[in-house]
Amino acid sequence: MSDPKVSVRPPHVAVIGEGDPRGPDAHRILEWAEEVGQILARSGVTVVTGGLGGVMRAASHGAVAAGGMTIGILPGADASEANDYVRQAIPTGLGVARNLVVVTSADSVLAIGGRHGTLSEIGLALRMGRHVVTLASWRLESEHRLGGPRVHRARDPREAAAMALRLAQAGPEQVS
Amino acid sequence: MSDPKVSVRPPHVAVIGEGDPRGPDAHRILEWAEEVGQILARSGVTVVTGGLGGVMRAASHGAVAAGGMTIGILPGADASEANDYVRQAIPTGLGVARNLVVVTSADSVLAIGGRHGTLSEIGLALRMGRHVVTLASWRLESEHRLGGPRVHRARDPREAAAMALRLAQAGPEQVS
Amino acid sequence: MSDPKVSVRPPHVAVIGEGDPRGPDAHRILEWAEEVGQILARSGVTVVTGGLGGVMRAASHGAVAAGGMTIGILPGADASEANDYVRQAIPTGLGVARNLVVVTSADSVLAIGGRHGTLSEIGLALRMGRHVVTLASWRLESEHRLGGPRVHRARDPREAAAMALRLAQAGPEQVS
Amino acid sequence: MSDPKVSVRPPHVAVIGEGDPRGPDAHRILEWAEEVGQILARSGVTVVTGGLGGVMRAASHGAVAAGGMTIGILPGADASEANDYVRQAIPTGLGVARNLVVVTSADSVLAIGGRHGTLSEIGLALRMGRHVVTLASWRLESEHRLGGPRVHRARDPREAAAMALRLAQAGPEQVS
Repeated sequence: MSDPKVSVRPPHVAVIGEGDPRGPDAHRILEWAEEVGQILARSGVTVVTGGLGGVMRAASHGAVAAGGMTIGILPGADASEANDYVRQAIPTGLGVARNLVVVTSADSVLAIGGRHGTLSEIGLALRMGRHVVTLASWRLESEHRLGGPRVHRARDPREAAAMALRLAQAGPEQVS
Repeated sequence: MSDPKVSVRPPHVAVIGEGDPRGPDAHRILEWAEEVGQILARSGVTVVTGGLGGVMRAASHGAVAAGGMTIGILPGADASEANDYVRQAIPTGLGVARNLVVVTSADSVLAIGGRHGTLSEIGLALRMGRHVVTLASWRLESEHRLGGPRVHRARDPREAAAMALRLAQAGPEQVS
Repeated sequence: MSDPKVSVRPPHVAVIGEGDPRGPDAHRILEWAEEVGQILARSGVTVVTGGLGGVMRAASHGAVAAGGMTIGILPGADASEANDYVRQAIPTGLGVARNLVVVTSADSVLAIGGRHGTLSEIGLALRMGRHVVTLASWRLESEHRLGGPRVHRARDPREAAAMALRLAQAGPEQVS
Repeated sequence: MSDPKVSVRPPHVAVIGEGDPRGPDAHRILEWAEEVGQILARSGVTVVTGGLGGVMRAASHGAVAAGGMTIGILPGADASEANDYVRQAIPTGLGVARNLVVVTSADSVLAIGGRHGTLSEIGLALRMGRHVVTLASWRLESEHRLGGPRVHRARDPREAAAMALRLAQAGPEQVS
């Protein structure tokens, strides 16, 4: 029997955003998520999402179309809640607390648009030492003092994916 | 035996912020946290915190000094980690995921200063339908679109406490 | 101002069991839970439960009737889900994962009857180093090897409450 | 571009047990775990574990040696904690609460030996509607009343794997 050790794990990037984007830029947001998923998958990245609709589905779609691996960390207890482009469904039963798992299971995080759930994931990602790339997403500024330069704004999907890949390869920072 | 039903539960406000504030305004941040705790307790509010040091300790100190009730939702498994001003210690064993419990156990949330943990709590609070009052804390702006007017900036501890009390009495919003 | 430090925290005992006991011994189970709550409260113990119905409600009822403090660690996000005898409601938003918080927030655990949720809480309590007293509840035996003598069977509510109090005062064991 | 939809997801079986088995039967336990992993992988099952040592490592080893997929749901925040036979590492940052994710992400659960952590996973699995196969593991009996016939004792690895596969294909039960 050949040595079965898993030699190298590919970098994981979490793509986060709304499950049901609305408004004038909803279409663009979804196109961007799909493009980001494609570029990441072509670079050998495993795309992690929350496994549901909207940005999660579009990013997974792009990644699977490019032959990539996709993981969906679901809030509920039923794998069938995952969208059709999730290869590995991880039902957690945790509800909103699954947001922590989405970002902790990734080496870097890429936010596209997004509302409050996305904001919570950005905060949790930073708390867990992950770098966050934002694309048409939240701008964060502390009146008090910034906690460090780990939020990176991108202008388009290509730049966002490239930044997220580079930051994933560099890996998370140690946090206490 | 008299009817033992618990007739009215007092409003709960979570006061969140750094466990170890540093820099030029650290002293002011702690003074504000203590003052906020005092004002809230005098209004009959139960003050919820993460139970550790810094802002959590100062807010609990202020509340207990005013004769109020304080709850500390701890990340670890040991009640003795709570600061000296926590009346009800709730060790959770959840690590960072306890941040969700801190904000969900409150009717409104008041952030004073704060870094990444505080940002994650603000995001989780909004996700759970809680209103958030900020005092020298994060400014949040969405490039995409704002998720609603549930973040309220206060200028001083008195205003912050009054806003948090009013919003706690109004209660959380229903979120899906 | 007098020194506001919280000098002594009372021992916490978690009383766990079914939210909706059925069958021929359901009535007895609920009577036992209420009696256990009363005895614990008279001894100065804070009674922690999952905050819902059945055994949780009966134990809280007994404790409040004896003038005691009761804490309810709720699975949902809404304090109004707590039964009428919970003094401090802690909505967690964690779903089933709140079971970990119920037992970790206690110094010892007392199981009365119970089904799968109770079994999960017994396992989690042992994992977190808590001693568990059982009353008409699960019998646990390892085919492999027992993990230690931290499960204690009681014959009646009086013995169960006395054992839980003594074990709570001794405190949890350190676990890795 | 061919239709990228993920057509069929393979059944997931969680193999649970001690991270550091000791005593006279430790060697046998690890051999059984490895054999179970091999049989499951040959049947096309994805093997889920807690990603660490002992039974988790042995089951993953067996599965990977047979060319199978392995997922490791880690308690910490660092993918490098996973053993060498985990193909998909999911760091959760949840500590002991990750036990819920291990069993919820599986269609059925197979316990080999095990101590308190394993007992908590058995309880959580039953609570989440999963069937549990036990091999030299906990015997569970309720003094009150059994919650249903969802615990299945196997005599050897071959029988255990066959039962777990069949139960995974049947799928979890609906629980409230």
